[in-house]
Amino acid sequence: MSLFTDLLTLQYLPFILLTLIISLFSIGFALYLVVKIKKLPEGTKRMQEIANYIREGSRAYLYRQFKTIIIIGAIITVALAIGLDYNLYWRFGQFSMIFGSFIIGTACSLFVGYIAMDTATYANVRVTNKVKEEGLSSALKVAFNGGMVMGLMVVGLSLLSITLLILVISVFVETDYFLIEGSIVALGFGASFAALFALLGGGIYTKAADIGADLVGKIEAGIPEDDPRNPGVIADNVGDNVGDLAGRGADLFESLTGQLIATIVLAIIIFQLAPAPYKIYALLVPFVSLSLGLLASILGQFFVRGKDTDEPWNILVKGMYATTGISAIFFVIICLTMFEGVAAWLFFAAAILGIVAALLIGIVTLYYTDERYRPVKSISNAAEGGPATTTIAGLSVGFESVGIPILIMVSALIGSYFLGYTAGEFWSAITPEDGAIFGSAIGALGLFSVCGMVLSLDGYGPIVDNAGGIAEMAQLEDNVRKETDRLDSCGNTTKAFTKGYAIATVALAAILLFEAYEQVVTYEKPGLLFTLSDPLLLSGLFIGALVVFVFTAFALRSVGESAQDIIKEIRRQFHEIPGLKEGKKDARPDYARCVDIATLSALKHMIIPGTLVIVTPLIVGFGIGPTAVAGLLIGSIITGIALALFLNTGGGALDNAKKLRKKIRNTSDPESMYAYNATIQGDLVGDPMKDTAGPSINVVLTLILTIALQFAVIFVILH
Amino acid sequence: MSLFTDLLTLQYLPFILLTLIISLFSIGFALYLVVKIKKLPEGTKRMQEIANYIREGSRAYLYRQFKTIIIIGAIITVALAIGLDYNLYWRFGQFSMIFGSFIIGTACSLFVGYIAMDTATYANVRVTNKVKEEGLSSALKVAFNGGMVMGLMVVGLSLLSITLLILVISVFVETDYFLIEGSIVALGFGASFAALFALLGGGIYTKAADIGADLVGKIEAGIPEDDPRNPGVIADNVGDNVGDLAGRGADLFESLTGQLIATIVLAIIIFQLAPAPYKIYALLVPFVSLSLGLLASILGQFFVRGKDTDEPWNILVKGMYATTGISAIFFVIICLTMFEGVAAWLFFAAAILGIVAALLIGIVTLYYTDERYRPVKSISNAAEGGPATTTIAGLSVGFESVGIPILIMVSALIGSYFLGYTAGEFWSAITPEDGAIFGSAIGALGLFSVCGMVLSLDGYGPIVDNAGGIAEMAQLEDNVRKETDRLDSCGNTTKAFTKGYAIATVALAAILLFEAYEQVVTYEKPGLLFTLSDPLLLSGLFIGALVVFVFTAFALRSVGESAQDIIKEIRRQFHEIPGLKEGKKDARPDYARCVDIATLSALKHMIIPGTLVIVTPLIVGFGIGPTAVAGLLIGSIITGIALALFLNTGGGALDNAKKLRKKIRNTSDPESMYAYNATIQGDLVGDPMKDTAGPSINVVLTLILTIALQFAVIFVILH
Repeated sequence: MSLFTDLLTLQYLPFILLTLIISLFSIGFALYLVVKIKKLPEGTKRMQEIANYIREGSRAYLYRQFKTIIIIGAIITVALAIGLDYNLYWRFGQFSMIFGSFIIGTACSLFVGYIAMDTATYANVRVTNKVKEEGLSSALKVAFNGGMVMGLMVVGLSLLSITLLILVISVFVETDYFLIEGSIVALGFGASFAALFALLGGGIYTKAADIGADLVGKIEAGIPEDDPRNPGVIADNVGDNVGDLAGRGADLFESLTGQLIATIVLAIIIFQLAPAPYKIYALLVPFVSLSLGLLASILGQFFVRGKDTDEPWNILVKGMYATTGISAIFFVIICLTMFEGVAAWLFFAAAILGIVAALLIGIVTLYYTDERYRPVKSISNAAEGGPATTTIAGLSVGFESVGIPILIMVSALIGSYFLGYTAGEFWSAITPEDGAIFGSAIGALGLFSVCGMVLSLDGYGPIVDNAGGIAEMAQLEDNVRKETDRLDSCGNTTKAFTKGYAIATVALAAILLFEAYEQVVTYEKPGLLFTLSDPLLLSGLFIGALVVFVFTAFALRSVGESAQDIIKEIRRQFHEIPGLKEGKKDARPDYARCVDIATLSALKHMIIPGTLVIVTPLIVGFGIGPTAVAGLLIGSIITGIALALFLNTGGGALDNAKKLRKKIRNTSDPESMYAYNATIQGDLVGDPMKDTAGPSINVVLTLILTIALQFAVIFVILH
Repeated sequence: MSLFTDLLTLQYLPFILLTLIISLFSIGFALYLVVKIKKLPEGTKRMQEIANYIREGSRAYLYRQFKTIIIIGAIITVALAIGLDYNLYWRFGQFSMIFGSFIIGTACSLFVGYIAMDTATYANVRVTNKVKEEGLSSALKVAFNGGMVMGLMVVGLSLLSITLLILVISVFVETDYFLIEGSIVALGFGASFAALFALLGGGIYTKAADIGADLVGKIEAGIPEDDPRNPGVIADNVGDNVGDLAGRGADLFESLTGQLIATIVLAIIIFQLAPAPYKIYALLVPFVSLSLGLLASILGQFFVRGKDTDEPWNILVKGMYATTGISAIFFVIICLTMFEGVAAWLFFAAAILGIVAALLIGIVTLYYTDERYRPVKSISNAAEGGPATTTIAGLSVGFESVGIPILIMVSALIGSYFLGYTAGEFWSAITPEDGAIFGSAIGALGLFSVCGMVLSLDGYGPIVDNAGGIAEMAQLEDNVRKETDRLDSCGNTTKAFTKGYAIATVALAAILLFEAYEQVVTYEKPGLLFTLSDPLLLSGLFIGALVVFVFTAFALRSVGESAQDIIKEIRRQFHEIPGLKEGKKDARPDYARCVDIATLSALKHMIIPGTLVIVTPLIVGFGIGPTAVAGLLIGSIITGIALALFLNTGGGALDNAKKLRKKIRNTSDPESMYAYNATIQGDLVGDPMKDTAGPSINVVLTLILTIALQFAVIFVILH
């Protein structure tokens, strides 16, 4: 195929250059923000000391985690080398390209996570100090900028790495379609692989530390959250960074990359018979729309401003609305430039459908996790019956929250599919059936275009969470703590919103990746149909459900077991260090030991569930064949999306029910305190649901799908 | 089709007569057992009084529930009459047949539940008395006989009603295939409809009462389980009857009927082109194999005998093994009589595969819920961290327990499919593809053939549970209570075993019903394929997951809300009735008010989730069409089976972790008591999972499938 050489002609080069320039600019802008943040003053000596503890703990964890991931990666590489030998298409030089891409993907994914986390460990203490020195609105801007570093790095690096990879292979190696497809899929595979372990390890760490610190601190010793006497308090704050930033950065990098890859593969196959400019435009659409969306996010961040008395969420949401508006305008330009007549407007409508669906799902998730509405209130009411009724109510809210988001997704899916189908009827370049698939890809691109801004909001949360922790540990004045609390409570809102968005993203990306898998398989074996009457497909569907459920089991169990280790250590310290509980001056807890125990336990526990996810599609594919894999993919998507919504929203609602009870509790009324304590237990159940198992399922889906895509051709050859 | 008139010729009549005789005999034997049980002595006056309370409460609940179900049934009937008007096939007389069948199904389902429950309310006190007078082994026999009434009634009535329906329509009305198919499906629809409400209402009742009584009694007032001072104690025992017997009896009736219907519909369509004896033999196989299986269960019960010192489970399991062996022998005869040569042996192998799969799944479920193995121990260990870590461990066990049973099911599915495929290659009567589907049907029949015995074991549990409660409330001697505890603890084992079996049953029945749906739809619209690339099908899959998750949400929430009502009432009574807590002689709790509140609350809460399940397939079918319905069916089967395993096994493991902690607790050690109390909370979370939401999902699946099958033709005509 000469497709990729065409990219280098004068007609198309500007689009490639646009992508490269915007992605480089956004990485540069992110680095500028890092420098700007580092220059801000850090506050009192005590604050610096605490921030240092957190930074060192986070780095120490990350280095060890990287080491573990590299070892597992090496094992996989060797296993792949043996496995890939089956495929007679590829020669040794091509092998190297594929493995190189796998390594690049792994490296980028880990690097983004590292930058996001490291920036946050500088930003957190500076946010606290800004609140202390200047007030809420300028502190909010610092926290948002810290989060934006993650957003810009994720999108910029994803675009840059894939564009460069395609260019380098086309120019210096060869333009064989299989090699390029194989290489970019390998990049996505590497990214997903690293992200799964980063997210899982980080997720286990953060929740084990959180549960350990809370259980012994709040409930047994009766001291407040983030109290410096608690030996687990630094581990808890480290956890926010390694879980919510390092893990999440890697996660978002891989899901964005996965979606980009799916769109490219689909565009190449769908438009292979289309006339000259369109077959290349189709390939360029994902690059251009994500680049312009990134530009929209950078422009949108200028709208994030407000007064100290404004609600933080109202300040932040301005940036979101601005980005959405600018992005929509860019989409008009893209569609009118790259497609023809009515089809252009129909594809534009599909993109808008994607954006609207994402916003709606975010809002529904907010409804289910906001203390002002029925779901969280129902949990808080159930707390009068104790921990069990609280938990039942929380699980019930989680199960219920699956409903409306799925209805929205289904509507967007059917809608963009039919818009694309109609576009295909009007436009001779593609058939209606292919137009339909491309329509759903454009819908997903619409959703992805605003991701720069959403990721920035996502990065904001853990920074202000840490900022509040530092204010508490450094024993700053009450009014500082009150303002950091306001910032933090908005962090829960952004978290709920962006989690809803993330699931919608993964759902659409997963369906695209499945369609790419289907296209690749039927390209190799024309006439193969994936029908429900095929028992191999049915079996695959069941196995898909199995993977998601068993993975969830391991994720939850890991948190429970790691928490046990930390609980024992904290209890030991309270017991053995004289005067610690009473808060005597010279009684210092051994923070580092808690950090160490959490690190080792998390790393140990991430291996089995991670391996399960990697090995299952390979066993099914090599053992049973491509049809069973198709079932496995859809089975895991359906159960995975439903279960992720359940875990995330149920856990979030339990968390906010605790926050609500904390507000309305009456410390002198035993019944009120009984209910409050019940919600603490409920929150502890929700913690591993929403911060370990739930988010990891996102990566599980993309990882299974990229593995299937990577090996699709081999599965077909073998069966 | 003259298929049904052929049934009445001399060649086939013996098989029909065999079915009628065995089913009538088993109903007669069940009634004989009832009379035999009623003749046994009831024990002391106090015991009789308590048993009367329970019986009256159970009957009062059931009458009100029947009234509610009849009202909803009438509304559905009217709605159906309007909906069915679309279908131009059917005339008014045919309408009446279909509605008549719907009503017969509803009535049979409720009747079986009633008989099962009523017998149990006589058997429970007599079991207690037998323990007191004679010892464990003869008491066990009484309890087993009580359970056997349910088993025999369910299978006998299911066979009898369908056989008679087919005969009556063939002889007196007409032998139109659509009418007979429509009528037997309507019978299944009616049975599933009634069962869903019976199981849901009963499930909400039993767990709300259990949680209410436990929370206020054990935890707040600090009095033991089943203590007569607890105002909720009668409601709790009533709950065991209305949930575990009335609900379960109806449930099992509908799932057996659903499977019988699926096999009949499949046999008719698959063998329509087969030569003369075989097309009728195929139709007869389900009747004959279930009849002979029923006979095997009646013969098997003679093996249930042992000494007072034997483990109860070891006594009961002899009956299970005997039934399995006899059933296997019967299957050899059936296969050799009805099929030819190698095909006969291959179908026999498929049947054996089904039986083995059922036994294995039962054993795996036992592993996950038995205190001697790792899962329950891990929950018990986690209890040291409090209620939250206990619950997390329990949820984790639940998620994990999905794995192996699904692998076993998938193996049985693929295995029986390929055995059938090979049979089709050897045998000219059918094509390999049709043979494959028939193979999986035979595999399911193998599994179903032992159901008479399994249902008897299932009915044993709540009877001995009640017997223990009566011993406690009547304040009998410690050694009596110890023996009833042994019987009860074996009840938990039988419950775990039969629940695993029930899910395997439902999974296979559901897949058969789906295949029947597919056959009916493609018979009407040849060439229609259900492929994964169809967005309507994908949307249907997502909606299937939605139904199951949202249903679970409502089921859990209903228990929580009803429990709140009961908790308030029990607290009020402890507060307002002087001397109640202290156990003064003249301070009598108002049991009836608790029973009343639980009844009203359960009935109120069962309406929304029940309606959701009935309405969704109709909306999807009428609104989007038969392809989306196919997705809906498979989506709900996949997520439903996984979720039911999670809920049942997770809940069961949490329950047994509490029992384990109770055994090893040290009442003078606060840490040990803290852990024990944590497992009580964990058990309370598990209660609605395993006894309300989990079992109801079984019925949800069959109900959605029978509705889809009932309206399949109309969905096709409309789209």
